[in-house]
Amino acid sequence: MRSYAIGMDIGGTTVKLGLFDQDAHLLDQWEIPTHTQDNGSHILPEAVSSIRDQLAQRGLGPDQLAGIGAGVPGPVDENGVVNKCVNLGWDVFNVKAELERLLPGIPRVAVGNDANVATLGELWQGGGRGYASAVMLTLGTGVGGGVVIGSKILPGANGAAGEVGHMTVAPEENAPCTCGKRGCLEQYASANGIVFLAKRMLTQSQLPSPLRDISSFSAKDICDLARDEDELSKLILDRCGRYLGLAMSYIACTLDPQVFLIGGGMSKAGAVLLQAIERHYRKFAFHPSTHTPIALAMLGNDAGIYGCAAMVLN
Amino acid sequence: MRSYAIGMDIGGTTVKLGLFDQDAHLLDQWEIPTHTQDNGSHILPEAVSSIRDQLAQRGLGPDQLAGIGAGVPGPVDENGVVNKCVNLGWDVFNVKAELERLLPGIPRVAVGNDANVATLGELWQGGGRGYASAVMLTLGTGVGGGVVIGSKILPGANGAAGEVGHMTVAPEENAPCTCGKRGCLEQYASANGIVFLAKRMLTQSQLPSPLRDISSFSAKDICDLARDEDELSKLILDRCGRYLGLAMSYIACTLDPQVFLIGGGMSKAGAVLLQAIERHYRKFAFHPSTHTPIALAMLGNDAGIYGCAAMVLN
Repeated sequence: MRSYAIGMDIGGTTVKLGLFDQDAHLLDQWEIPTHTQDNGSHILPEAVSSIRDQLAQRGLGPDQLAGIGAGVPGPVDENGVVNKCVNLGWDVFNVKAELERLLPGIPRVAVGNDANVATLGELWQGGGRGYASAVMLTLGTGVGGGVVIGSKILPGANGAAGEVGHMTVAPEENAPCTCGKRGCLEQYASANGIVFLAKRMLTQSQLPSPLRDISSFSAKDICDLARDEDELSKLILDRCGRYLGLAMSYIACTLDPQVFLIGGGMSKAGAVLLQAIERHYRKFAFHPSTHTPIALAMLGNDAGIYGCAAMVLN
Repeated sequence: MRSYAIGMDIGGTTVKLGLFDQDAHLLDQWEIPTHTQDNGSHILPEAVSSIRDQLAQRGLGPDQLAGIGAGVPGPVDENGVVNKCVNLGWDVFNVKAELERLLPGIPRVAVGNDANVATLGELWQGGGRGYASAVMLTLGTGVGGGVVIGSKILPGANGAAGEVGHMTVAPEENAPCTCGKRGCLEQYASANGIVFLAKRMLTQSQLPSPLRDISSFSAKDICDLARDEDELSKLILDRCGRYLGLAMSYIACTLDPQVFLIGGGMSKAGAVLLQAIERHYRKFAFHPSTHTPIALAMLGNDAGIYGCAAMVLN
């Protein structure tokens, strides 16, 4: 009886793995290091070997797997072919075919981009439960995003659907983004971005703030101080929320999702961040979408394994 | 043998109708006036009566119809229920059920928003032929839009997918849009919008231009003069293209379509308009989507009947 599924979220440092039963319960989760040498050719064999070991500990074998879903940090086409994952050492590589070779007879293999897969996971068992369409914005070192419509991942024609971090929200910006353009959302709304914004606003403003006494402050410092009613930190977070709200109003005018999800390290700021975003989103959004809910992602780093399993269990 | 389909594009002034065979050929097209009195209750019965007459002239009957698709100027849900079509006098109204009542036994009835249906028509037999996903921007009195993904219309959670005319492309704008917001794309890129832009730029610029001698110029005058190398008209069109290119870069970062289509009355300007858009789109777009093709719509006012038929023939 094939009644288990594996979710496998492949990152540049670790491969996160989860064993699910067919009722969508996470039974086990573990991780192994990602060995990227030799063009990343060890990654999938080592992961499958680890899966076999884990199954054996439960007295199970690979012939009891109904499917395996994999998330990868790069663009993936609908056939499960990755087009360059620099962090993993992969060039053009058919991940789906390789997994089918390593797990002969497995009925379902699916491969998705990590940000898209995480969005699917949040819809399945996280902050977006009960919805079928969502756009998630992941505010981490950069700003990533994923799009799910009708409970299916939308990869986009060039694997670029959900690349909301590179919307030009400030065409007048002079400082370059890492992508080479200027004025991208990521320049203001990532963990690095809000620090960049804060440094600029500190020099432009005369307001006192505890931020001026911290030699190297972080996004968390800004959010914490905003929560403690520091005026300047509130202004900085409001500016960050304005760029996010503006970008989300563009997303709503394009595909009008049922819900927005906010994830990534920055989302730990919680209500104070959501309020800053909502204040501006409600103002910029076109009237039919004004009340689209904006929710926090709930699964953190586990969203990937959930979404990977969702690809093969649903 | 049910081997014909009807496309019915319902507008505030006329209902456009098309008879298609199952090989997707348009055999006949005609139109009737839209009688909106009595809460629009005559519209569908009169249209169906006209369809029966037209079929009879070919020696056909309604029992030879495989399906009917209808496009309406308002939001439609997935069950074919319209939520207010002010131009037609309709409140909440189940168009699909009413068509099934008027054409008993007809196998397929589909209802879509007019802008979305037109986009589907352009993909099927117009400027987007060969593609499965597209966003069309319709530059008319206002700026509308439609979204098709995987050859299916994307209506959005609130019927607002593709409402690209109300993206806030100029948050610094003081003049209000008809929707009540400020700085919407429609304020600069519709037929009225480019005239608004031109009047503003005429007062801000010292450049000579034949535009200054036309008492009440139109979008067509501006595009014609730009094509004739009038510097100021070129600057106006470039500014309009900048807003369009910026909005399209947001669309690409959201759903990354295979192709963009430009339709509506303004699109008759042709190459000079496309060049203005492309110049800015290529600059603002995130690199995976930089080369997304931008094509002119080809079916004009017939796109609707084609798209309506496509909903039931494909």
